[in-house]
Amino acid sequence: MFSVVKKSKKSAARLTELKTRHGIIRGPFFMPVATKAAVKNISAEELVVLEPQIILSNTYHLMLAPGTPIIKRAGGLHAFMQWSGPILTDSGGFQVFSLSKFRKITEHGVQFADPSSGTRYLLPPEKSMTVQHELGVDIAMAFDDVIGYPAEYAAVEQAMQRTTRWAKRCIAHKKKIKAKYALFGIVQGGTHKQLRLESARELVKLNFDGYAIGGVAVGEPRNKMKNILNWTVAELPETKPRYLMGLGRPEEIVTAVQHGIDMFDCVIPTREARHGRLYIWKNPSPAPRQARGTLSRKGRGTREGTFYKTINITNAKFAKDFSPINQTNLKQYSKAYLHHLFKTQEPLAMRLATLHNLEFYLTLMADIRKNIQKGLL
Amino acid sequence: MFSVVKKSKKSAARLTELKTRHGIIRGPFFMPVATKAAVKNISAEELVVLEPQIILSNTYHLMLAPGTPIIKRAGGLHAFMQWSGPILTDSGGFQVFSLSKFRKITEHGVQFADPSSGTRYLLPPEKSMTVQHELGVDIAMAFDDVIGYPAEYAAVEQAMQRTTRWAKRCIAHKKKIKAKYALFGIVQGGTHKQLRLESARELVKLNFDGYAIGGVAVGEPRNKMKNILNWTVAELPETKPRYLMGLGRPEEIVTAVQHGIDMFDCVIPTREARHGRLYIWKNPSPAPRQARGTLSRKGRGTREGTFYKTINITNAKFAKDFSPINQTNLKQYSKAYLHHLFKTQEPLAMRLATLHNLEFYLTLMADIRKNIQKGLL
Repeated sequence: MFSVVKKSKKSAARLTELKTRHGIIRGPFFMPVATKAAVKNISAEELVVLEPQIILSNTYHLMLAPGTPIIKRAGGLHAFMQWSGPILTDSGGFQVFSLSKFRKITEHGVQFADPSSGTRYLLPPEKSMTVQHELGVDIAMAFDDVIGYPAEYAAVEQAMQRTTRWAKRCIAHKKKIKAKYALFGIVQGGTHKQLRLESARELVKLNFDGYAIGGVAVGEPRNKMKNILNWTVAELPETKPRYLMGLGRPEEIVTAVQHGIDMFDCVIPTREARHGRLYIWKNPSPAPRQARGTLSRKGRGTREGTFYKTINITNAKFAKDFSPINQTNLKQYSKAYLHHLFKTQEPLAMRLATLHNLEFYLTLMADIRKNIQKGLL
Repeated sequence: MFSVVKKSKKSAARLTELKTRHGIIRGPFFMPVATKAAVKNISAEELVVLEPQIILSNTYHLMLAPGTPIIKRAGGLHAFMQWSGPILTDSGGFQVFSLSKFRKITEHGVQFADPSSGTRYLLPPEKSMTVQHELGVDIAMAFDDVIGYPAEYAAVEQAMQRTTRWAKRCIAHKKKIKAKYALFGIVQGGTHKQLRLESARELVKLNFDGYAIGGVAVGEPRNKMKNILNWTVAELPETKPRYLMGLGRPEEIVTAVQHGIDMFDCVIPTREARHGRLYIWKNPSPAPRQARGTLSRKGRGTREGTFYKTINITNAKFAKDFSPINQTNLKQYSKAYLHHLFKTQEPLAMRLATLHNLEFYLTLMADIRKNIQKGLL
């Protein structure tokens, strides 16, 4: 199901292949976020053109609306949203932590309230497994107990150990319901080495199909991420995919790849697009391959600013910038036009910006894979 | 430039051809509204697929943002918005009436304030002609003095007579600036027969390239429209295109075609789509041609309800309706999915609904042309 195709000699980076029922995914890869069964502003047809290999959706959101019975009757999430490639769903652990108005954790599971309707739900690990099974996803995540930053050591330890106990219940329940998805465990433990090591070791014993590093990007200083990566990856088997959840900026992704991470998801490209922030290759050039070559030739790009920049298209200077938005999927439209669409609140603005940023991120991943292949990363 | 290809024996309906620099338009036709250089929620690529023959944009909006200097530098409105088919622009007369916060009319022109910035503008007929010239549109509208309903007879008469005087200035200025667009006059006169007749007769003397019926859909009872149509069309030359501005519902369009109208524009399909209201052929059938045949076979469809219905996709009953949105351009998506997108405020919702309604309106026009050809309308 998973194989490491090539290991870098320069870093812990690796080329991987992950087989799912809906296709093979070559890593390292990035998963655009389709929280509510749609990548915001993007149609199923546009997704096919963008070729993201795999997308991510959310157990929590789909449970609340439209609800799993509807998606089940539609023939599963793939049929419902008309996406025929692989889908990974987060388990809901992070979303009940970050989104619900009310959250009460017991050993049994999490009670939470839908922030819009106030309706209370109970989500034990088993329910999360069943929902992901009913959605028909390719990769399901174990249900974890997520804690914020900062938090008391004892509280972080307690959440991590509960995550381990819930992981066992997830595995048992997956077997019971005969779910066909790959199931990934989520390493917790905050910014504490001892807790990350314990979490990783316990989960590895359970022989998950892959391992994610969770509880990052919850408010901790960004410089702690490298430590968390180093400690955790060292404990994870080479033979299983590694997924850094919810990150990140392009330079963070490059760094994480160099630390041995294979999988990413992040709302940055889509969310920032909606605010008019575009990711742009440095040394803009008429040939996109050349522009991408900036990353290739230097074989690095680990610091912000070495291979890309961001612009805010709503800045006045773009009102008269008649150069194309990019040289690839939006070469027909000028920056001046996109500026105008944002300034006049035309909904097309967000779509074009999203198409641009997703193409940037997916190209970044293709370049990363190319550079590992060439021995540059 | 314009020819009547076939005249119906059953009504005043006719098949027409209008040649423009950006293509030939077969009438009767409908112009989707791209007020601010974009059909709301629709990309240039989607427009090409929808094949609307021609779209409508607005002098008033484009003057305010991005401003004509920008569009001129972009190479004109076609290049700016990446639409290579014909474009008609309204002159701004209706928009300063309906949208501006402040409007002061003198014989020279209209003073108005941008409702968002408060900036004051002066728009004499000559300026409207120049702006439409700089936009590079195919069909420009004369600048008219629009009055609401109800209004005093004397006020309607005054606005109509000013429209005539401004029409002369528009023609003179078009000549002076050597604009290449076709220029259409706009008949005013409210709901008063005598004023409509006078307006039409005076404008016809000026030998415009086409004639529009303006000042409808400004609050007057809908049943007055047939009278206005009858009085006005009788005065217009058969050899020139006739355009009923700002209308309407499907059955109103059919009626107007039967009264000899060739051209339509309306925000109904796009605006109602954004509120989840979809236009649906009656007797839904897997073969769209058959569904359209409902109109064809009966050879009428002039009353609401005879050939279509509207549904509100946000109604609870569509939550579990897994039938396709339509059998044509959105056959891959279920109504349940579109319902979900609306309920969860996914921006894709408005796009899909807009694509559906525009396809309905354009199919309606194609069916109308087919039925005139067959002698059924």
